[in-house]
Amino acid sequence: MHFTDNNRVEDLQIAYIGGGSRGWAWGFMTDLAMEEQLEGNIRLYDIDRSAAERNRIIGERISAHPDAKAHWTYERSDSLAESLTGADFVVISILPGTFEEMRSDVHAPEQFGIWQSVGDTVGPGGFMRAMRTIPMFVEIARAIREFAPDAWVINYTNPMSLCIRTLYEVFPQIKAFGCCHEVFGTQKLLCSMLEKNGIPGVRRQELYTTVTGINHFTWLTSASYGSVDLMPMYRAFAESYWEDGFCEGKDDNWMNNSFDCAHRVKFDLFRKFGAIAAAGDRHLAEFMPHSWYLKDPETVKRWKFGLTTVDWRVEDLRKRYQRSDDLVSGREAVALNGSGEEGHLLLKALLGLGDLVSNVNVPNRGQIPNLPAGVVVETNALFGRDRIQPVYAGPMPSNLLPMMARHIYNQENTLRTAMTCDRALGLTTFLNDPQMEIAPEDGKKLFDRMLEAQRGYLPKEWF
Amino acid sequence: MHFTDNNRVEDLQIAYIGGGSRGWAWGFMTDLAMEEQLEGNIRLYDIDRSAAERNRIIGERISAHPDAKAHWTYERSDSLAESLTGADFVVISILPGTFEEMRSDVHAPEQFGIWQSVGDTVGPGGFMRAMRTIPMFVEIARAIREFAPDAWVINYTNPMSLCIRTLYEVFPQIKAFGCCHEVFGTQKLLCSMLEKNGIPGVRRQELYTTVTGINHFTWLTSASYGSVDLMPMYRAFAESYWEDGFCEGKDDNWMNNSFDCAHRVKFDLFRKFGAIAAAGDRHLAEFMPHSWYLKDPETVKRWKFGLTTVDWRVEDLRKRYQRSDDLVSGREAVALNGSGEEGHLLLKALLGLGDLVSNVNVPNRGQIPNLPAGVVVETNALFGRDRIQPVYAGPMPSNLLPMMARHIYNQENTLRTAMTCDRALGLTTFLNDPQMEIAPEDGKKLFDRMLEAQRGYLPKEWF
Amino acid sequence: MHFTDNNRVEDLQIAYIGGGSRGWAWGFMTDLAMEEQLEGNIRLYDIDRSAAERNRIIGERISAHPDAKAHWTYERSDSLAESLTGADFVVISILPGTFEEMRSDVHAPEQFGIWQSVGDTVGPGGFMRAMRTIPMFVEIARAIREFAPDAWVINYTNPMSLCIRTLYEVFPQIKAFGCCHEVFGTQKLLCSMLEKNGIPGVRRQELYTTVTGINHFTWLTSASYGSVDLMPMYRAFAESYWEDGFCEGKDDNWMNNSFDCAHRVKFDLFRKFGAIAAAGDRHLAEFMPHSWYLKDPETVKRWKFGLTTVDWRVEDLRKRYQRSDDLVSGREAVALNGSGEEGHLLLKALLGLGDLVSNVNVPNRGQIPNLPAGVVVETNALFGRDRIQPVYAGPMPSNLLPMMARHIYNQENTLRTAMTCDRALGLTTFLNDPQMEIAPEDGKKLFDRMLEAQRGYLPKEWF
Amino acid sequence: MHFTDNNRVEDLQIAYIGGGSRGWAWGFMTDLAMEEQLEGNIRLYDIDRSAAERNRIIGERISAHPDAKAHWTYERSDSLAESLTGADFVVISILPGTFEEMRSDVHAPEQFGIWQSVGDTVGPGGFMRAMRTIPMFVEIARAIREFAPDAWVINYTNPMSLCIRTLYEVFPQIKAFGCCHEVFGTQKLLCSMLEKNGIPGVRRQELYTTVTGINHFTWLTSASYGSVDLMPMYRAFAESYWEDGFCEGKDDNWMNNSFDCAHRVKFDLFRKFGAIAAAGDRHLAEFMPHSWYLKDPETVKRWKFGLTTVDWRVEDLRKRYQRSDDLVSGREAVALNGSGEEGHLLLKALLGLGDLVSNVNVPNRGQIPNLPAGVVVETNALFGRDRIQPVYAGPMPSNLLPMMARHIYNQENTLRTAMTCDRALGLTTFLNDPQMEIAPEDGKKLFDRMLEAQRGYLPKEWF
Repeated sequence: MHFTDNNRVEDLQIAYIGGGSRGWAWGFMTDLAMEEQLEGNIRLYDIDRSAAERNRIIGERISAHPDAKAHWTYERSDSLAESLTGADFVVISILPGTFEEMRSDVHAPEQFGIWQSVGDTVGPGGFMRAMRTIPMFVEIARAIREFAPDAWVINYTNPMSLCIRTLYEVFPQIKAFGCCHEVFGTQKLLCSMLEKNGIPGVRRQELYTTVTGINHFTWLTSASYGSVDLMPMYRAFAESYWEDGFCEGKDDNWMNNSFDCAHRVKFDLFRKFGAIAAAGDRHLAEFMPHSWYLKDPETVKRWKFGLTTVDWRVEDLRKRYQRSDDLVSGREAVALNGSGEEGHLLLKALLGLGDLVSNVNVPNRGQIPNLPAGVVVETNALFGRDRIQPVYAGPMPSNLLPMMARHIYNQENTLRTAMTCDRALGLTTFLNDPQMEIAPEDGKKLFDRMLEAQRGYLPKEWF
Repeated sequence: MHFTDNNRVEDLQIAYIGGGSRGWAWGFMTDLAMEEQLEGNIRLYDIDRSAAERNRIIGERISAHPDAKAHWTYERSDSLAESLTGADFVVISILPGTFEEMRSDVHAPEQFGIWQSVGDTVGPGGFMRAMRTIPMFVEIARAIREFAPDAWVINYTNPMSLCIRTLYEVFPQIKAFGCCHEVFGTQKLLCSMLEKNGIPGVRRQELYTTVTGINHFTWLTSASYGSVDLMPMYRAFAESYWEDGFCEGKDDNWMNNSFDCAHRVKFDLFRKFGAIAAAGDRHLAEFMPHSWYLKDPETVKRWKFGLTTVDWRVEDLRKRYQRSDDLVSGREAVALNGSGEEGHLLLKALLGLGDLVSNVNVPNRGQIPNLPAGVVVETNALFGRDRIQPVYAGPMPSNLLPMMARHIYNQENTLRTAMTCDRALGLTTFLNDPQMEIAPEDGKKLFDRMLEAQRGYLPKEWF
Repeated sequence: MHFTDNNRVEDLQIAYIGGGSRGWAWGFMTDLAMEEQLEGNIRLYDIDRSAAERNRIIGERISAHPDAKAHWTYERSDSLAESLTGADFVVISILPGTFEEMRSDVHAPEQFGIWQSVGDTVGPGGFMRAMRTIPMFVEIARAIREFAPDAWVINYTNPMSLCIRTLYEVFPQIKAFGCCHEVFGTQKLLCSMLEKNGIPGVRRQELYTTVTGINHFTWLTSASYGSVDLMPMYRAFAESYWEDGFCEGKDDNWMNNSFDCAHRVKFDLFRKFGAIAAAGDRHLAEFMPHSWYLKDPETVKRWKFGLTTVDWRVEDLRKRYQRSDDLVSGREAVALNGSGEEGHLLLKALLGLGDLVSNVNVPNRGQIPNLPAGVVVETNALFGRDRIQPVYAGPMPSNLLPMMARHIYNQENTLRTAMTCDRALGLTTFLNDPQMEIAPEDGKKLFDRMLEAQRGYLPKEWF
Repeated sequence: MHFTDNNRVEDLQIAYIGGGSRGWAWGFMTDLAMEEQLEGNIRLYDIDRSAAERNRIIGERISAHPDAKAHWTYERSDSLAESLTGADFVVISILPGTFEEMRSDVHAPEQFGIWQSVGDTVGPGGFMRAMRTIPMFVEIARAIREFAPDAWVINYTNPMSLCIRTLYEVFPQIKAFGCCHEVFGTQKLLCSMLEKNGIPGVRRQELYTTVTGINHFTWLTSASYGSVDLMPMYRAFAESYWEDGFCEGKDDNWMNNSFDCAHRVKFDLFRKFGAIAAAGDRHLAEFMPHSWYLKDPETVKRWKFGLTTVDWRVEDLRKRYQRSDDLVSGREAVALNGSGEEGHLLLKALLGLGDLVSNVNVPNRGQIPNLPAGVVVETNALFGRDRIQPVYAGPMPSNLLPMMARHIYNQENTLRTAMTCDRALGLTTFLNDPQMEIAPEDGKKLFDRMLEAQRGYLPKEWF
């Protein structure tokens, strides 16, 4: 890359791992096309080469859009080495395994009465997804260490904390961070609250929120809009809507779709803990004890959030396949609508084109002083030229600390299990999840069964 | 006190808080009578004055025993101030509340399907016991700060960790530590194992065990007898007896009575975690998830340990009352049998009469580096003249860490709840216990009910 | 205070301790008059009542200036209690003692060959100034705890680190921070460097610098202007000017006057340590070993910075007295020129009127992870509504760490000495300063002599 | 190795690196011959093969002594691999370089007025010795990692802290520790003090001392003999003898010879810092500022300790060569006198033949909580079967902390310099030593000259 006189970056090289993605990739490519200060080349790498190839075509179409302010070139890379060599930035957004494995993640535990609303972060599903994802990230980390050690690495893959944690475990000098839009959703909820309180039209970027926790189990310990403290306002808001829930109206953008919830879980958590849980209710519920929000489908219904089935995901993907066809063939014209994500803004900040404070997933260096050093936490950070400096979030509140620590230590043991294929450690870690309120014998059966179900994606040391 | 030429301490002043104890006090007084290097005066303080008075008489009888090697004097103190002023040592062994409150601790949760084997350390019973005990220890700590700031303080009261933690919270310079014989019981089990392996006659003091954890949830991460590594031997032992349990034969000394268990829980924990859990199974079971060992009375039976009912305790105390009568009246002659406790040896060590390594409950100063500083942990320490120096136990093994941390953070929040009477914090802490695998609404009902049941012993700020 | 609809704060109450200040106060009052979003009342408290009264008059004149955008009212407070009660902000800018004591601080060590360029932060002079300043800050901290516990407290007094440290030692919940313009001076030097490199007109606020260290011994470990990395440019700059020094031209504003230096010390430190020392050379020299830059007046001259004599200060104050007379009497008209300080901007940020990243002196909460927790460090922080969140600065570079730690531990011992009047600790601390390369017997003589010289300002426990 | 029924270890394999040592080796071999519970084989490895061969012969003679209780066999190893493969223990006692390099270490700085009493630990001599020793220990650590990863490793080489630190840096799982008899010397001084106070005949092993610090700059923060607190007694002792010094009488055993001192430095340090410095005055003086005890030979004389010249060492070695000849040839009969060292006792403890508390150099795991983790400190530890567990020493006293931290950070930078051959870091580290109270230009000259003087032993990256 190089900088032009009018503060524009040209010839920027971005490696996109998982570049065949149907969804994320389109949003990212569109955001870049709308940003006039950046331009360059994107290398799409995907184990599904044809998907990468199709995105290459879609990317070129986006670049060719008459309103595009930057004209990126796209190429398909057929190996990690090829995509990474010379890259300034690396974007990682992969799907570990197929829907078959995901079906096991989400639905196998139902046989033992364990219902999961997402199954990709914690719970038995999150654990198993980690077992097959971590080895992939080990491989990616090694490739980055070899081919692009100085590149900045942005991850969007789940389980987020463990993906980032793995990158640093393998290559401690890596410059990696993880982005997730769940906090944005809660910030938008605060904007809706402001509107209800007679202050319409506020954008989430105008708020300041102190973000703290781990991905999908993130909390806001303070929130303000200008000189207005939003915490007392939220208290009243939570009390008003706790019983019936609050609906913001449909949001059809699939990328930001929180799959509809009425925020009852969020309000209930505020009433119990006094801080604003900042993720979709589907995610939050999975971090709390099984008997709280996920005891059975009726309980879930009462708390007004949905169980995302794999059938739904299969159908959703089918539609996106179709849309991919339409975009490639030109049946559907590309449109330049922003994704609402901040990825391109973070790139700009890291290039020195404008400092930014945003929430991010990076190893704990003390930003949350009473959590262990090195584990991946989500807090605000100050982004600037070649630096991400976490902003001090204060100690995790003492009432949240036990559950936060429980998940953090579980995740550390999950990492170690995946790195060592140690069944004994894996089992006790699996059993220690708050969702696993079942007899340990049953837990063991489920553990063995779920491992078996994804045998194809696990190192052979497991068996 | 003063030291004589032949290395003997005379005129030692010991304040005994809870000096009306029926059991512990007798053992302690007997141990002292059998120890020739120490002599002095014991001030028995108890809110039950007549109990203290009766123990004064029993103490004098013990002193008068023809085989007594030391002749201690006994006096009844009618206030903390009186007992503490001028004391070189303080012993605390109190019963917080009556059997009425204990009945609520142990049995009230049964209405919601929660069975407890002891109910005095963790679980809903342990939490509630802490609520009434901590204010008493606040008062004791203040009195020690005022009247005996330089005295060494030995506590035997449960919940042990929280009692010691409270003393240091109120008076950080206190020289307090907590003693518990549960680890001794497991060391004796290792001696039985040695006997089974053809090495009979070993005393527990001849073993070395690396002790780590918190009281009643203590683990041995290494164990040896001379040059013999006991860990592989224990692995075989646990495998052999895991299914049917191991019985050492009845132990009738009530002070050490572990209320009979077959160590199945201990063996199961070893098979899962690879370290030796070092407490009675009744205690260990309460630290693990409800669905593991305490799901229902049948499960408990299968694991071969007992639920200690309050009825049993009432009957047991009745017998000890009777025995107290007999000892006071002389119907029963005092006998000089050692209690098996180490309290008097620790006193000697602190006076400079012989260094000693033993397990002890003191604040974490780094002896377990991956647990928070300041929380009360149980590890080995080197006892010597006016010093207790913890011995480095190494990091808590990663597979044990999540559950250990969970209890530690719960206990910190339990302390804070008791100090502030904060119902919101109290409730989330109460619900976070591994035994509480019930709906939070039910948990709240139980919480309110149990608080009400001990209203008489709680600060009025609660209500 | 209250907020108006157009995002303006009215009726803000500011307590100004040391409100008789001739200089700082004028700049601050002027900055406020030029800021349209804030308005309120300032309570000027000073042990020199007439000085406070004169500033009250000057303040009213500034408020009455036709171009003033805000019309502050001024009142003289005759006690700490009076000034603090109801205050939203507290500004502290006091002069501890008189020129007599300062003369001892700066010049007494010359008898033993120790030359100091400032003598107010470290070295024998800084130590002694701390001895009389810390008791004053103990008193101020107690008053704030009693009368204005929720107010934000801004300190400008030296020795900065120890003043802030004392406030937190006495009242750990205080919301205090310290501001100093030395870093600004170095940022301006970087702007001059940019100009020399063909990029004129850049304001220091447009740079980003990673600030780390302790007040007056602060370092920039990275610096950038947009996408330009300033570190390589500075390396060339330091090499070019190391020998002859670099002169930016006279700066006559006494408040910002760095008393002229040619930055040779700064360049030399860069060549040795690879980071940009960010304070005036006069200050920096005092933190390094005596034999480096302050061996004797000739060495100082060679390094092209000045020894600030107390005679100079006496004369300077005389002029400011005169100016005070002129301003009070109206012989000199008040003028609305900005001071270049950021105090009023930080106030605005804390009120929610605009987030800001700036360097600040607050206790270390992990922003510099390899320095002890709780000591006062200077790094960037994110200022916003009712919060100052330090930005992670990374570990102190290993080559700077030993000298940084030496001063930090000395300052901790200086604090303890001042709090306890412990002569033994005081002497070893005094001797451990890098300037004290003299025989300890001589050091002791100097210690006793300098203590005696300020007897009037020391607690009687010293003697 | 194997254990016999009567608790004896046979066939123990010890690798002795530096096995040609004239002195240490003889003492160690003799101690082993006198110890009936251990027997086995010693592999003597030395780059001076003939020295190893001669010690082999001497070893055999010792084994053949009629009073020997154990009959060790000796063999010469011609490579690290050969000596290490299969070893249960590794002893390291090497001399890095020749007297030529040592002459530069000790005497080159004299040209700039820097006098060193030993020059092997800190100061310019210690730094330079580290530069050539650390690469040797890197090689040894790698060999141990490859050939004897489970062996216990005992080091006797100086600079002790850095040797151990290097072993752990290269191979973090190493089981290494460092032994030094300097603390024993101070314990013996306490025995002499007891004798002066009417308590004769006490052996140093009967005392308890809380040891804390780094090798050769170790302190006793408490000391007792049975129930007697030795600290007040030492205060009186130090006051009595501070002026004239205290002489214990000649000690002719060269291994323990502290090269005569009158303990004036030790007493002076006690009067200033209130703790007992526990090393010979020659070592202690080098850790304090140049102007305190080592300003010039007259100052040294006044403080009554000696400057150990290299000429003395050359002559001393000549005598030991001679003695080696005599022992090999049989002109001198071997005698079984204990060395006073504890090495063989530590071996026994690690084999499970008797627990032991002794001072030892190992990485800080929290035994001194306010020093950085991982740096090598000297404290007590509990030695037992396959474990060394540091005993908590408490925080370094605040008045000692600054100087202790200064040396520790210097040593960390010394290590990094040696590992990276970074001249810039090396120079600032070299200049930061308390002995270097000279102009930095002179310091640089000395630095270059001393590096040059040992060019033969430095990695070529330096030049």
